[in-house]
Order: sequence, then structure tokens, then C-alpha cells
Amino acid sequence: MLDNLSATKVNGGWHKQYSHISTSTHCQMRFAIFLPPGASQTNKVPVLYWLSGLTCTDENFMQKAGALKKAAELGIAIVAPDTSPRGDNVPDQDSYDFGQGAGFYLNATQAPYNTHYNMYDYIVHELPALVEQHFPVTTKKAISGHSMGGHGAMVIALRNPKSYTSVSAFSPITNPINCPWGHKAFSLYLGDDQMKWANYDSCELMKNTSSDDFLPMRVDQGDADSFLIDQLKPENLTAVAKQINFPLTLHMQAGYDHSYYFISSFIDEHLSFHHSHLRS
Amino acid sequence: MLDNLSATKVNGGWHKQYSHISTSTHCQMRFAIFLPPGASQTNKVPVLYWLSGLTCTDENFMQKAGALKKAAELGIAIVAPDTSPRGDNVPDQDSYDFGQGAGFYLNATQAPYNTHYNMYDYIVHELPALVEQHFPVTTKKAISGHSMGGHGAMVIALRNPKSYTSVSAFSPITNPINCPWGHKAFSLYLGDDQMKWANYDSCELMKNTSSDDFLPMRVDQGDADSFLIDQLKPENLTAVAKQINFPLTLHMQAGYDHSYYFISSFIDEHLSFHHSHLRS
Repeated sequence: MLDNLSATKVNGGWHKQYSHISTSTHCQMRFAIFLPPGASQTNKVPVLYWLSGLTCTDENFMQKAGALKKAAELGIAIVAPDTSPRGDNVPDQDSYDFGQGAGFYLNATQAPYNTHYNMYDYIVHELPALVEQHFPVTTKKAISGHSMGGHGAMVIALRNPKSYTSVSAFSPITNPINCPWGHKAFSLYLGDDQMKWANYDSCELMKNTSSDDFLPMRVDQGDADSFLIDQLKPENLTAVAKQINFPLTLHMQAGYDHSYYFISSFIDEHLSFHHSHLRS
Repeated sequence: MLDNLSATKVNGGWHKQYSHISTSTHCQMRFAIFLPPGASQTNKVPVLYWLSGLTCTDENFMQKAGALKKAAELGIAIVAPDTSPRGDNVPDQDSYDFGQGAGFYLNATQAPYNTHYNMYDYIVHELPALVEQHFPVTTKKAISGHSMGGHGAMVIALRNPKSYTSVSAFSPITNPINCPWGHKAFSLYLGDDQMKWANYDSCELMKNTSSDDFLPMRVDQGDADSFLIDQLKPENLTAVAKQINFPLTLHMQAGYDHSYYFISSFIDEHLSFHHSHLRS
């Protein structure tokens, strides 16, 4: 069911890649898992799901974030899925911000995308079930991501607040219904009825969140990020959070851009943030 | 003279890339520098030179080693040069282990390689002079590298022991005159006279090192490294070190392979090792 593609020792634990046929996306999906040292059936560990941004695969975060040393210390597994369905049979476009590598963590409703582009179901249901079946992990989960993946992490946590102890994001697309990346993706994946887009918009979802469904949220955003003003709009998210007293902490980080150098600078703080909630 | 290609904030410091016309290699060369927070003309910092392995550029270490957090803490600059001359005019071969991306940190004597393939002079003389002229660094230097770059770091330190406070290597080619990678590279770059090869062989150089020229050397080697037996041969180096009491510490690391996941697992220890010598 799971095909092991690689196994590499790192920081005393293991980085492994797997592929499997997905019932959500109807194609072969690849994901990576980091298992910290000491993880075993008698010592199960909690999981942080990491959702990557546009153009990424399961590899970018694992290779570039510098996260595994701290995750090893804290005893947290990390699961990094791919960012979309892939393959010759999967409809694509010749652009970096739509199609393969750009699944936007939603369930598409529009042909020809609705057969394969069901990353929401994959991340929320299929992947955790698979991970909990095959690896020495507990059912305690946190979720984080970068850019498009930060959008995915926040949307998924806001819609499933009891499933995650905490959520965080780097440079997330906070309000996709109001930015070019979101407009392009949502109109092609979800159609022209913008009412349906709100199900995948963190600002809209947060507006309608009752305090019973609040969960700790941390966002870091570089103020030298070239996508900040047109695409990311963290001020829209903080405005909603302030309105309803949602427990969001936004860290504007002076001088940082949109790259993995930014993520690597603050990933340890995100891991500690999630650890403080995962262990309680 | 130096053309700045990028500047990215990371861990409170800066990662920058530069290109320049090299007088050693007679082509445009690119290198990266990490400057830790607080480095300035009134607070100059020492430099660790990092030499990468086959196929790498200035980018692999900076993106994948996870070294910059610790370097920022310790106040060490890191300079990562490219692994060979590059360009359409630079003779090349269609193989990963010779030509562009595979300069072996030597001065070639054989045509058509001897015009451009002078990475030894570039690393030993030209690059440090350039770095010390343009950046807020002291003349205190350490050197490290991976695989072909571990070979380069050890050869350069053994031949210039007063120029470096310390040397380290991950998975180095310790005895290139006795392995396939070395045989191929040295015969094409240096010709068939194997006497001349000894100038670029760590084991041969160490044999003839007097105790006045000893410097601290740390080597880490994974025992699951697929190149260990045929190409790397750390046992040849430890045999020489034992014979002459050279201050080499070899750490065989159980279960680790040849990848950057291995480097990232132990780079903090290498930085601390160099820091202890750079500050004294």
C-alpha cells in the first residue's frame, strides 16, 4: 500500500519518502516523513503536518528548512506531502501558480480538475489516517505551511479546529478571494460562484468562527517579501482576528523575504510553539 | 570588481552572492558569503571557508546544511565558492565527476584544462584576499568541506597550515591517488606522472608533515555511505595520522549516508570545533 522510496538517517532520526495510490486524488502521491529518534510503537510521537508553497514537492521543506534538529530534540514527527496531484493523466497548465505543484489544498468542483485536485480531502482525511496506520505516531496533530501552504494550513485548521492542537504559517496567502493567485486558482478549480470560494479563505472562515473553535495560531511574515502587498495581505487577517478576539499572533519580521532562508530563521520557534500545545 | 547578485536576510545576518572575473581561473566565478549579525568594520568576524562536493555550486551548502543559525550565534562568517570554473569557454566533459562542477581544488597542468582549472590558487590566495578586502572579516580562517570538498579542505590546510586555525571534513576523499574519482581527475588535470599527484593527496601530504605544521583536524564519516569503501577510505588517513601523531579526530557515524542530511546532523559540532580555534 505504501511504497518506500528512500530512508536517510538525520539528526538521530529518519527521513523517509513514500508513494501510494491516493483515493482522494486518484493518482500516485508522494510524501516525506521525519521520525525523531526514539519514536516507536511503545513511544508514539505527535505529528506536525507541513504544507509547502507553489512549485514545491515533499522535498523542499525537508532539505531547506533546517527543522529536523529541533524536531528531533522535541520528539515531533513531521509529514510533508506534495503540493498537488501529479502525473501525465493529471490536468495541468504551463504556469507555476496553477495545476501541478499548485493544488491550493482544496477540493476542485470544476472539470477537468475535479477528478484529481482534491488536496483538501487528502490532507484532512486520507493522509493522517495513512500515517497513523503505518508509523509510530499519536493522533495529536498540528499543522503549518508556507505561502500557498500557509493558506492551506490555516484553512484546514479553521475548518477542523478539533483535529489540530495549533496552526502556524509563514508568509501565508491570508485572503485568496482578494488576490491574483487566489482569483486564478479558485475560478478554475471552483468556478465563478465566489460564494463557494469563502470555504477556502482564511479571513472569511475566521469571521465565522465561534470562540469554542478557536485554536492557537502563529503567523510570521517578512516585511521585505515581494509578494506581501499584492498576494499575502496579513493585515486582512489581523483585522478579522482583532474583531473577534481570535488568538492569532502575527510576527512581522524586519528585512526578511519569501524564501526558505526566512523559514529556516524562525522554524525552531514554530516547532516550540506547536510542541507547547502538542504535549498538553 | 564584485558584482552583487543577491542579498537575503537569514538568522539575523545576511546571505549574499557575488560574481567576479577571477585572475586564477580566467572566467567569471560565483561565491556566496554568510555574514553573521553584528559583523561590521568595527566588529570583524573570522571566516570558515566551505568547499562543496561534486556537482555542487555555491548554493548547496547555504541552502541545505542548516549551518547558518549556529554560525550566527557563534559570530562566524561562511564563504562558499563554486566547485570549478564555469562557462561556455571552459573545457568540460559530459560526466558528473570531471570538468565543470568537479575542479578538485587543484591547479591543472594539462591542456586544455590548465588555463581555467586553477581552483587551488583561487581558494588559497585569490578568494581570501577578495573577501578580506570587501567584507568585515578578520584574517582568521578555518576550512571545511564535503567529499571532493573535504579532500580540498584537507589538502589546502595541510599545505598551508599557518593560514588556517583548524580544518574539518565530512566524508572526504582522503586518498585520491588510490581511488577511481582521484585517478580519473588527476590523470586528466595533472597528467600521468603520479609523483605530482601526491601534492593533492591528504594521506601523502600528512605523511610528510612535521609536528610544527600540525593543526586540529576533525573528520566525520557515515558508515552507510555508499562511497565509503571505494572512494573515501578514511582508514588510510587515520593510519597515517596514528603513525605521526597528527591531531586528527575521526568520528564514524553509524547509519549515516553521503547526503546533506548527514552534514546537517553534525555541522553545528563542526562550527563549534572551528569556533574554539578561531577565537583563541
